[in-house]
Amino acid sequence: MTERSTGRLIGVGTGPGDPELLTLKAARAIAEADVVAHFAKKGNSSNARRTVASLLRPDVIELPLLYPVTTEIATSENGYKSQISCFYEEAAASVAGHLSEGRTVAVLSEGDPLFYGSYMHLHVRLADRFATEVIPGITAMSGCWSQGGVPIVQGDDVLTVLPGTMRGEELSRRLGDTDAAIIMKVGRNLAKIRAALAEAGKLGEAIYVERGTMENSYVTRLADKADDDAPYFSIVLVPGWRERQR
Amino acid sequence: MTERSTGRLIGVGTGPGDPELLTLKAARAIAEADVVAHFAKKGNSSNARRTVASLLRPDVIELPLLYPVTTEIATSENGYKSQISCFYEEAAASVAGHLSEGRTVAVLSEGDPLFYGSYMHLHVRLADRFATEVIPGITAMSGCWSQGGVPIVQGDDVLTVLPGTMRGEELSRRLGDTDAAIIMKVGRNLAKIRAALAEAGKLGEAIYVERGTMENSYVTRLADKADDDAPYFSIVLVPGWRERQR
Repeated sequence: MTERSTGRLIGVGTGPGDPELLTLKAARAIAEADVVAHFAKKGNSSNARRTVASLLRPDVIELPLLYPVTTEIATSENGYKSQISCFYEEAAASVAGHLSEGRTVAVLSEGDPLFYGSYMHLHVRLADRFATEVIPGITAMSGCWSQGGVPIVQGDDVLTVLPGTMRGEELSRRLGDTDAAIIMKVGRNLAKIRAALAEAGKLGEAIYVERGTMENSYVTRLADKADDDAPYFSIVLVPGWRERQR
Repeated sequence: MTERSTGRLIGVGTGPGDPELLTLKAARAIAEADVVAHFAKKGNSSNARRTVASLLRPDVIELPLLYPVTTEIATSENGYKSQISCFYEEAAASVAGHLSEGRTVAVLSEGDPLFYGSYMHLHVRLADRFATEVIPGITAMSGCWSQGGVPIVQGDDVLTVLPGTMRGEELSRRLGDTDAAIIMKVGRNLAKIRAALAEAGKLGEAIYVERGTMENSYVTRLADKADDDAPYFSIVLVPGWRERQR
């Protein structure tokens, strides 16, 4: 006898923010699910839920999964890891409760569920016990280079995705060793990122994107952007395709 | 007086192959366009067109853009570059013809238009002359890790996207210098890729995906896959997230 139930877990990518950048499959999964679960910080509402609000059935069961601490504090701090791991255990247990009752649970995930997504923490705890499907979503980085009309990689280009939290020296070494790069988690790391790009000789071509694909999105050359007020989820793009003829 | 016309160029990502993995925005753009352009090899039909076939209006103008040579031959060969560049010039001219008449032209692009897409060659030739919009699409790699249920990157992971065409030594060096990797253009490079992964100590965790998200998709541990018959567009995934607790 296995524990596999008739309930189905679906990780649903909701894309970078524009409600029209959901896939047809994601829209259908949300409209058909018995339960729609979404992550948010305690006291905040979920961005992913806001993106799909118009698709939620009036009778759907909503399951908010509320982070006890912000993910922006230093993850090395004492207590953070155990608090967050405890939170994921509890979140998985509440989702499992619905799955065991035979319900289909759609877990919303900004961007793409398996690409830096919170959904992953549920996936690794539940996918071996319940029928599971993952519906990919447009990533934030893809939303950003599309919004900016920035050709990012072509041909045999190497692309590197880097966290802005990395040490400046390491960042600069990696920027010098790739054709194209995406730097995530910019925020308070912007001055360090700028220095690393200059060191790697790539500051001139870097592009800064804030709130890609949202109504109030903002795209500019990084050289024209001040260091003092970048939101955490802004992104820096370093385009490749050096061989392009025009 | 500028050359800007009322015609609108739209690069439309059609995703990894499953027609339901189109975005709502892409579906609307295709249904509303005056002209739908699609790339294919001469003698073949376009994969992207097949994906969106059910969305094409009966009265839409179709503009097939047919590559004179395959993109799989060595790009260093004499004559290849000039032939292909000539082809892109002609393709841009035929799209510009429609734009100048005030028509909206949707250019289909498998995956994401600005991520290794053919559309990019039109974008750089036309975006400064005509109103242009790019609608992102689900990339093949995202379709593959979702199909396989493979958590690819989390937290501060570095992700590297590598072409399988790269020299083995270089491939192995880069695989050893990243948390997660995607290797594209696998095909006849599979034996070399396998050796590079072994050299980097990452063969055991590598996953092979063929035709991700299509009906006949195939996902397996690379260790269980023979070297002899991989299609060109198969992908190898090396998942990151080493800190994951279970």
